[in-house]
Amino acid sequence: MAGKRSGTLVIIGGAEDREGRKEILNEVADRVGRGKLVIITVGGGKKGDESLDEYEQIFRTLGVPHVYKLAIASREDARSGKAERAMDEASGVFFTGGDQLETMSRIGDSLISTRVHEIYAAGHVIAGTSSGASIMSETMLIGGNSDESSKIRGSLQMAPGLGLLKGIIIDQHFAERGRITRLLGAVAQNPAVLGIGIDEDTAMIVENHQRRFTVCGNGAVYVVDGKEVTYSNLSAEMQDETLSVYDVRLHVLSRGHQFEIKERRPEMVEAEV
Amino acid sequence: MAGKRSGTLVIIGGAEDREGRKEILNEVADRVGRGKLVIITVGGGKKGDESLDEYEQIFRTLGVPHVYKLAIASREDARSGKAERAMDEASGVFFTGGDQLETMSRIGDSLISTRVHEIYAAGHVIAGTSSGASIMSETMLIGGNSDESSKIRGSLQMAPGLGLLKGIIIDQHFAERGRITRLLGAVAQNPAVLGIGIDEDTAMIVENHQRRFTVCGNGAVYVVDGKEVTYSNLSAEMQDETLSVYDVRLHVLSRGHQFEIKERRPEMVEAEV
Repeated sequence: MAGKRSGTLVIIGGAEDREGRKEILNEVADRVGRGKLVIITVGGGKKGDESLDEYEQIFRTLGVPHVYKLAIASREDARSGKAERAMDEASGVFFTGGDQLETMSRIGDSLISTRVHEIYAAGHVIAGTSSGASIMSETMLIGGNSDESSKIRGSLQMAPGLGLLKGIIIDQHFAERGRITRLLGAVAQNPAVLGIGIDEDTAMIVENHQRRFTVCGNGAVYVVDGKEVTYSNLSAEMQDETLSVYDVRLHVLSRGHQFEIKERRPEMVEAEV
Repeated sequence: MAGKRSGTLVIIGGAEDREGRKEILNEVADRVGRGKLVIITVGGGKKGDESLDEYEQIFRTLGVPHVYKLAIASREDARSGKAERAMDEASGVFFTGGDQLETMSRIGDSLISTRVHEIYAAGHVIAGTSSGASIMSETMLIGGNSDESSKIRGSLQMAPGLGLLKGIIIDQHFAERGRITRLLGAVAQNPAVLGIGIDEDTAMIVENHQRRFTVCGNGAVYVVDGKEVTYSNLSAEMQDETLSVYDVRLHVLSRGHQFEIKERRPEMVEAEV
């Protein structure tokens, strides 16, 4: 089992810089090195194809020699010979944005899912932005929340993800879409899970057998730790209610800050000046 | 000094129900009782006048016998004989929404401000919604934040308020406008201050010499307690940076929950079924 969880996850809150320094995408490219990167978009139609073309262009500019584009429209696509050839000998996978529920309905329990786990276990990089970030965890937050209220109902819909990242639930576009409540609700529902909200143009880079992550990009990563929670009103009967929860520990981490996942402790790394 | 801080503050996050049960406005009306309520709007022009008419109508329906409307357009208005007569023998004051900075620039250090403090110290109720909530504290959050990011700059502009509520900084329209970051920034800047975010159609009712508040309405009240903060990057030179802060304690309180302000502890009160 030593090989498990030995790669790197680059989990991006969406809308990462694609025109300037490309700080985050550069972190991905660095880790792919001279290998082969597969860019996967699911169910995006013409927009998905454009997105593939844009990322291909960027990763080539960033020095990745082998970029393979893979558009998945159906479950059949996710089991096809084309998909198999795409994933063959890949040393990096990048999931574009889209819809996390649609993505999992296409690639869940497929050849792609199996290969992504194998590539990660072999020590390579798996990256995803926006919905591509949400699918990294075992359970992902989906839909709802359009009214940005503190109501439990609607804001707390979940579904199974790829399960690469253990014991953590991810939310993206975090400050931009005011999503603290649904992340608090998810943590109140299961305080064993760490809630992590990632701003746009911001990423958490998970390394070292998932013992630690580092923040990069322009925004912040919010860590919601429920292990000291003394009360919450989450229960099946309370779906109509407004959330109440006491004693959440919250950390806000910007570029360069690290977090020890098992110890649940943030750590400032000396900035290079 | 026993008479100081002996009244009630009803601090409303904006957009309180004015057509249904009117739960929050009823709490205000109950506390005015058979007395005189002064509704104050500042600088709102025609919209402010309409707002005054609407609230007058509602408070009359809720059984307040004496409702006095006061529109303040200038600092002169705030010192006029009309304002003096309005405040005379009032047993309640209600501030409508508007702009908190404009409001304080008109009524700061005026007869109205002095009278509001006297009415509160005499044991009566002072209420305010939206910007009328923000002005309750000694320091209020103003403007900025339109981009809902985790950047410190722009999100952390402050100005002096009425100063009725001690040691607490208020933000309103809280979940609806995704304002957790600016409240976290305010608390990181001065952890002695308790940060409180109030959702729309939600109020905190501060009583018992400001020892305690109770939540009413449909949304939640967020309490951001910085007393255990171990690190933050707030400083004059960091205005361009993204916020970082470790070990914030966060409570989310819905209807009926209480908070002991001095002890900084939430408390669930048994619901009446």
